[in-house]
Amino acid sequence: MRHDGRASGALRPVEITRSYLKYPEGSALIAMGDTIVLCTATLEEAVPAFRKGLGRGWVTAEYAMLPRSTETRSLRETRGRVNARNLEIQRLIGRSLRGVVDFSAMGERTIWLDCDVIQADGGTRTAAVTGSFVALAEAFLMMKERELVEKIPLKGYLAAVSVGLVKGAALLDLDYREDVSASVDLNVVMNGAGEMVEIQGTAEEGTFNREQLDLLLDLAGAGIAELIGKQQESLGEKAVQLIETACGSGR
Amino acid sequence: MRHDGRASGALRPVEITRSYLKYPEGSALIAMGDTIVLCTATLEEAVPAFRKGLGRGWVTAEYAMLPRSTETRSLRETRGRVNARNLEIQRLIGRSLRGVVDFSAMGERTIWLDCDVIQADGGTRTAAVTGSFVALAEAFLMMKERELVEKIPLKGYLAAVSVGLVKGAALLDLDYREDVSASVDLNVVMNGAGEMVEIQGTAEEGTFNREQLDLLLDLAGAGIAELIGKQQESLGEKAVQLIETACGSGR
Amino acid sequence: MRHDGRASGALRPVEITRSYLKYPEGSALIAMGDTIVLCTATLEEAVPAFRKGLGRGWVTAEYAMLPRSTETRSLRETRGRVNARNLEIQRLIGRSLRGVVDFSAMGERTIWLDCDVIQADGGTRTAAVTGSFVALAEAFLMMKERELVEKIPLKGYLAAVSVGLVKGAALLDLDYREDVSASVDLNVVMNGAGEMVEIQGTAEEGTFNREQLDLLLDLAGAGIAELIGKQQESLGEKAVQLIETACGSGR
Amino acid sequence: MRHDGRASGALRPVEITRSYLKYPEGSALIAMGDTIVLCTATLEEAVPAFRKGLGRGWVTAEYAMLPRSTETRSLRETRGRVNARNLEIQRLIGRSLRGVVDFSAMGERTIWLDCDVIQADGGTRTAAVTGSFVALAEAFLMMKERELVEKIPLKGYLAAVSVGLVKGAALLDLDYREDVSASVDLNVVMNGAGEMVEIQGTAEEGTFNREQLDLLLDLAGAGIAELIGKQQESLGEKAVQLIETACGSGR
Amino acid sequence: MRHDGRASGALRPVEITRSYLKYPEGSALIAMGDTIVLCTATLEEAVPAFRKGLGRGWVTAEYAMLPRSTETRSLRETRGRVNARNLEIQRLIGRSLRGVVDFSAMGERTIWLDCDVIQADGGTRTAAVTGSFVALAEAFLMMKERELVEKIPLKGYLAAVSVGLVKGAALLDLDYREDVSASVDLNVVMNGAGEMVEIQGTAEEGTFNREQLDLLLDLAGAGIAELIGKQQESLGEKAVQLIETACGSGR
Amino acid sequence: MRHDGRASGALRPVEITRSYLKYPEGSALIAMGDTIVLCTATLEEAVPAFRKGLGRGWVTAEYAMLPRSTETRSLRETRGRVNARNLEIQRLIGRSLRGVVDFSAMGERTIWLDCDVIQADGGTRTAAVTGSFVALAEAFLMMKERELVEKIPLKGYLAAVSVGLVKGAALLDLDYREDVSASVDLNVVMNGAGEMVEIQGTAEEGTFNREQLDLLLDLAGAGIAELIGKQQESLGEKAVQLIETACGSGR
Repeated sequence: MRHDGRASGALRPVEITRSYLKYPEGSALIAMGDTIVLCTATLEEAVPAFRKGLGRGWVTAEYAMLPRSTETRSLRETRGRVNARNLEIQRLIGRSLRGVVDFSAMGERTIWLDCDVIQADGGTRTAAVTGSFVALAEAFLMMKERELVEKIPLKGYLAAVSVGLVKGAALLDLDYREDVSASVDLNVVMNGAGEMVEIQGTAEEGTFNREQLDLLLDLAGAGIAELIGKQQESLGEKAVQLIETACGSGR
Repeated sequence: MRHDGRASGALRPVEITRSYLKYPEGSALIAMGDTIVLCTATLEEAVPAFRKGLGRGWVTAEYAMLPRSTETRSLRETRGRVNARNLEIQRLIGRSLRGVVDFSAMGERTIWLDCDVIQADGGTRTAAVTGSFVALAEAFLMMKERELVEKIPLKGYLAAVSVGLVKGAALLDLDYREDVSASVDLNVVMNGAGEMVEIQGTAEEGTFNREQLDLLLDLAGAGIAELIGKQQESLGEKAVQLIETACGSGR
Repeated sequence: MRHDGRASGALRPVEITRSYLKYPEGSALIAMGDTIVLCTATLEEAVPAFRKGLGRGWVTAEYAMLPRSTETRSLRETRGRVNARNLEIQRLIGRSLRGVVDFSAMGERTIWLDCDVIQADGGTRTAAVTGSFVALAEAFLMMKERELVEKIPLKGYLAAVSVGLVKGAALLDLDYREDVSASVDLNVVMNGAGEMVEIQGTAEEGTFNREQLDLLLDLAGAGIAELIGKQQESLGEKAVQLIETACGSGR
Repeated sequence: MRHDGRASGALRPVEITRSYLKYPEGSALIAMGDTIVLCTATLEEAVPAFRKGLGRGWVTAEYAMLPRSTETRSLRETRGRVNARNLEIQRLIGRSLRGVVDFSAMGERTIWLDCDVIQADGGTRTAAVTGSFVALAEAFLMMKERELVEKIPLKGYLAAVSVGLVKGAALLDLDYREDVSASVDLNVVMNGAGEMVEIQGTAEEGTFNREQLDLLLDLAGAGIAELIGKQQESLGEKAVQLIETACGSGR
Repeated sequence: MRHDGRASGALRPVEITRSYLKYPEGSALIAMGDTIVLCTATLEEAVPAFRKGLGRGWVTAEYAMLPRSTETRSLRETRGRVNARNLEIQRLIGRSLRGVVDFSAMGERTIWLDCDVIQADGGTRTAAVTGSFVALAEAFLMMKERELVEKIPLKGYLAAVSVGLVKGAALLDLDYREDVSASVDLNVVMNGAGEMVEIQGTAEEGTFNREQLDLLLDLAGAGIAELIGKQQESLGEKAVQLIETACGSGR
Repeated sequence: MRHDGRASGALRPVEITRSYLKYPEGSALIAMGDTIVLCTATLEEAVPAFRKGLGRGWVTAEYAMLPRSTETRSLRETRGRVNARNLEIQRLIGRSLRGVVDFSAMGERTIWLDCDVIQADGGTRTAAVTGSFVALAEAFLMMKERELVEKIPLKGYLAAVSVGLVKGAALLDLDYREDVSASVDLNVVMNGAGEMVEIQGTAEEGTFNREQLDLLLDLAGAGIAELIGKQQESLGEKAVQLIETACGSGR
């Protein structure tokens, strides 16, 4: 039994609030237990220099934590301070989301995903991926409505979860207390068909073998399927239909 | 009649949620209409170098806007970019709050106030002052509870509001649409006795005279009294009693 | 009696040296007692991106202190250090001067005002506003002479002064020693008609009421009128005539 | 057949030059084909603040590329420019090496690993891990010789390699040309017992399944075993004996 | 004949105003023709880390130009901008002055020399060296007066001048117009005995030979002797006696 | 006799490896004793803004040291740290090389010279100049081969060496140990005709006279002639012929 009473394969309570803010083209507030991340999607009618003239879109992400989203206050990243962890995470978010975007269908536009951690209790990067998908889908739905695109430029759903080995046991969706005592930490990003888009596994002062990896990937797959269900609930029936028209129901 | 149907002396709907986050010593989410600011108070058991050895505390503030809190996305203040407007505002917030703190009663401690704008629809700096007071009071109440201080180190309540001249009319609590067309913009910070702690008035490509200033200060005074009522509601009866014990009911 | 023998409503000795440097389009060295600020105006034949194509000009300011303009040496603002006080002040200077500029008459040009404090003995920001007006007027006079503009693009004179409450007494033009012991500090910017363009009042660990505010504004008004006289002396009769032609003698 | 004639499971020619520089406590120049990385290990007699007083050591890494190590010149990371890719890579290197260090045996000391890419032809981050292990081992051997430590503070060997799917084929040790056309890119760090310390897999605009992951991990395991052989050759017999004494021959 | 009527070996009019500012321990405003540099000396009762515990002092310099000291406005060096030319010059100034300081006699103290260019018409770095010597001497005289040191911690006088080849002619003390058309530019720093402390010669898109170098050094020597006379005039008889007591009249 | 057995006028063993890297248009690894510098030349088909439209080329240099090229590890110049010494040196390198370039023959192109110190044992800046000449010549030879230019855009050879006074003796090519104890340090850059392009002499806490300067320049001239021989050996006969065709054999 885990410290909060969860089974090893259980997610924390998940809540995704679509259209949380009034200005962005897409936005979602995602809570996984006490971890809360605000994700927004901003449409820009241009692409970065390296994509110009190719007729294809771009998706990029930024990730930051509010100073007091954590137990102790962290310094703001202003005035030349650089937070390498944040940069690593935002690269992961951008790469992951790009894995399910149909750039040709997007046209030469950029979507900026901003993930701001309101409260951090473990798994902020995977919550950010899951929440960003909803914000991105919202922005794409709006673009379809405004007839900027012919179809929703998505190739599939996308969600992420962390799994880990804690005292030898494989656990789904670690909170901060579990994360700290995990010997292996694995972040998994999958699409709606259960295929992997990104995996990042780290043994903190230890190692892991192939069997353990298999066990962890099984747990992650089940958790991600559940999260995609939550995304669909939050997006609503009509949105789900439009997405499935674009990318096929299997994904 | 104003575009949203308010009377000239009416505030937008005000909502203050105390203890919004689980980690900070104090926190408050304040909404004034569509303007939403998250304020947290962090206790540090030290003072800056220039205050060392004086037996007195310090209060300082930081202010920032989430990238998509506004109509168009703003760049994050990372990597050397400096936002002079943010710096000006956080200096105002810090100075204002320091105006009602009893530093001797605080001991050699610092409270960091972090004001992060979730959504901006005018009046973010004054909302930040009003919300920060609640977060600060919460932190002081916690310090009293833990017996770090003998009394709540406050000399009075504090709230702020913006007033302005729009097409010749004096209006209370401008939203963004009104702010843009105002010829004079005045931010007022007062204590519970209606005394001024800070005023900042700017004529955008115009001027204002003494009569107009008087009219605006009258409006502001009434609005601030109402806001202090909201602060008291949010803090609750017991907290209000403790604060009044510390600083007298008149304030 | 004040420590330097001045009456409560007396300015320090004021000296404005027009055309102090040979390169800038306008320049003035202003001394108010021991406070010395060098103000220059630089003409640029372009406006910032947000003003492009509107046929209107722009005025912006920068403010800095030489490292040893003060009692103790301050660090230079190079290499990523940011001085929030300087940024706040330069925003005030820019805003104030823009209050008396006729941007349509200026054409799509920018004037950069650089205010560098040579020696600081209180009131540097208000001296910077007063001196910048002379540098700006000089640049405009030069533009008229070169027939870049049809009329001097000014709507009025502009000067600034600080007033404050020191041990209960309202004093004009505080020097550093007085500033440190003031309970209220008010910076006032007015035009030639005695109308307010900007006011910034701060109670340092105290408060002020409406009567005190009125008293301080009276003092400031008289001081500013005197300073505008000094500006006119420094600019000379011919320049004064050109300015009055442009904006009317009342201002 | 691959473009350079290699079999799918073949490494590029590997050359590790131990003690490449005269100043550092450890250094190695590693060449994998045309990819050349200079790795140095610097001993510091202190640990970062967060490790103080625990009696344990620390290992951290920095990674950078010389401006013309690549086809086109890249800007230096000076003057506020931040290279997020470099930061992500150096975090990977540090984390990986820490996976095989016996921090208690090290004492309160830090080893700084500097990985500077002289020439980049794919796989620089994995070459940096493999080369850094040699530099780190050299520094530890020197510490043993100087009797700063009682045993070599290692728990095992460590090497890394990249594997990927190129046109459906699983390939070992991708060069730049292969890397660009790979649909899946997996970096694997293993110890001498073939256990995983870190895996990072990314599908570039695609996905991968469990079978493909297994295939890639098999290839990586064989390649890493070969690389550890090269490390041992470069370190020499006596060093290998000392390391095996410390961590057991199986690793 | 030079464009301003000077002979090839003539300095521009030189004026050195000692004690120009009221706060610094030493200050001098030096004008060489239209080149004006404000030099201040600040005493700090500490030395940098690398000099600690040696019982010896330190002298360091900073150099900057006001934005409109030049024909066209230059950007301020704030917010991460770096001016390599300024850094190169301030290193020259610091090195030069250190050449005549008796660090043992100074005690563990630092003098900060700040050289701020008010107006630039060629030769600002050499004017800064010459003016800094006066500010430094003033600070040392004050230290002697306050009995912080037993003798003036100087080993000699120090002044600098630029010489150059313009259309084949060797000229002393180039102004900006001459500097631009010079094929060789040589900055020379000498002590009171005519010995060299620093020379920096650059051929702009050309070369120079040994004879030309000799000619230029002759001119520089004469100019520097004259400048040292001006320094002595400015410092006054009593100061000159104290300095000569410390370092011998020959220097 | 010097500590390494060299005569006072002897260079350390010099080795120049042309075409050290595969990507740059030109590259050379230069070793002077234990000092090793990697120099690359990158061709850019554009010139900086201030050279646009003049039909002339530009050459600029950057210089940096690897963190562990020195006895103690130095911090990387990332994240806002500025190394004034590096900036001063790269300005010297750029200026020196520009002294022998025929910019009209180059066309509107820029060559970036990157000098990265692999190991530092004194004389890195002069080694960088000497090595950069070879990298630059290689880039020019390639440009000739590709018929981008009609002739090699060089006006002469260029090399540099340091000389100094150590315990009264004039020595050529100081290593770090000698450099530290030198009372005078002189860096000399000359062309193939023995004419000076740049000299920088500094007396560390001392002075030098005209005779000493002459002695040092004699030593430098002989050393530079020898270095130019090494450059020619490294470039090969055919390259030497092409260069001599362009600039005459005397240079």
